[in-house]
Amino acid sequence: MASAEPAKPSIRALTFDVFGTVVDWRSGIIREAEASGRSRGISRDWAKFADAWQALYRPSMDRVRRGELPWKPLDELHRSALEQILPEFGIEGLSEAEIDHLNRAWHRLDPWPDAVAGLSRLRRGYILGTLSNGNVALLVNMAKRAGLPWDAILGAEVARHYKPDPEAYLYTAALLGLRPDECMMVAAHNRDLLAAGALGFRTAFVPRPTEYGPNQTADLAPERGYDILARDLIDLADKLGC
Amino acid sequence: MASAEPAKPSIRALTFDVFGTVVDWRSGIIREAEASGRSRGISRDWAKFADAWQALYRPSMDRVRRGELPWKPLDELHRSALEQILPEFGIEGLSEAEIDHLNRAWHRLDPWPDAVAGLSRLRRGYILGTLSNGNVALLVNMAKRAGLPWDAILGAEVARHYKPDPEAYLYTAALLGLRPDECMMVAAHNRDLLAAGALGFRTAFVPRPTEYGPNQTADLAPERGYDILARDLIDLADKLGC
Repeated sequence: MASAEPAKPSIRALTFDVFGTVVDWRSGIIREAEASGRSRGISRDWAKFADAWQALYRPSMDRVRRGELPWKPLDELHRSALEQILPEFGIEGLSEAEIDHLNRAWHRLDPWPDAVAGLSRLRRGYILGTLSNGNVALLVNMAKRAGLPWDAILGAEVARHYKPDPEAYLYTAALLGLRPDECMMVAAHNRDLLAAGALGFRTAFVPRPTEYGPNQTADLAPERGYDILARDLIDLADKLGC
Repeated sequence: MASAEPAKPSIRALTFDVFGTVVDWRSGIIREAEASGRSRGISRDWAKFADAWQALYRPSMDRVRRGELPWKPLDELHRSALEQILPEFGIEGLSEAEIDHLNRAWHRLDPWPDAVAGLSRLRRGYILGTLSNGNVALLVNMAKRAGLPWDAILGAEVARHYKPDPEAYLYTAALLGLRPDECMMVAAHNRDLLAAGALGFRTAFVPRPTEYGPNQTADLAPERGYDILARDLIDLADKLGC
């Protein structure tokens, strides 16, 4: 892994994966599910619940990617998955408003401790855009609550293609008026960086070794030589000279 | 004109026209064209130049709206119009880089004096989105330079429909996850507010009586009873209790 000095003058925008890279989705979903259960006197293994929910929306996202399902924003994929796992965890009788509130837990995730400070520094030197599979409303509500200083909320919904489809990356760069090599993809996930890098994006890997909980095995280390390897977003700001 | 108290709890987002409402495009284009001319020792009536440029891209926008031209972002419409008026004003021999720089004058417009302060207050209470005919790159670059605190850069390019086509408004609301009546369109132009209002948006009229120069005759007064009539964006913040 070379932590090579990037050809800085040519990078104009940093495009961010959000779930896992900027916000800690797992802790947030555990917290929100627990609160939801507590309000009805229900106790469950909420970590298991969070993992099950997160695992379940991925196959339907892949069906959208393969064209087997029409375009659906992430809120709807979350909702379908939630309706499936609630009975699996023996959670019944939630009202429509309660289910909707729980589904919007994804709008209320907290950033990793370094995220707001790191992004605020990075924003001085670069355009900061989301390049997330989250839908616009989700990302706007999350940013407003968490204080994430995005310049633009872009990504899957606007491109109508989920990552790692090339269209998600290329349309985001195009909307910013930039060539792919003027954009740096920032992510905690190798798959995301490999897809972006193959299209000409610069790449920054920011591992989040507890994203999937204490027993995480994936994405602990870079699988390729990315342009930058950073401990967190503050370290990324250091490395980019912001 | 009733300046009725809006049903405030239901408004979640303020969606803004940008050119004329938030930024003073005419003064900015005059300044940039003058600078461009000065660097080549050319003197012209730059106010006339700005007015001609602005007037010229509208017909091509209407051709896009009627489907006679494929989708083109505003930067491209500006560029075609610029290439047409440069010879009309006897300005020749600009390099590609100089023409591109001048075309991007629209990215470097200054806000009206109340805009940044007003938007910063409004942002505490509402989601602030652009709902502009400007393309995303233009609006992002403008916001970054001018310090406009948008939560989301939306509008024509993302919807692939120019205002006042209904799709521009409805898709913006949909991306924010809101019903039209949860959005308030803020504009200095009656046409924009009438189109938005017809779709269920709340409406706030912020007249800019010198947008078109000292002899402006249009959009000096509201043509309907909008929800709010505000002197400027600080007054709008006052009226919305922000």
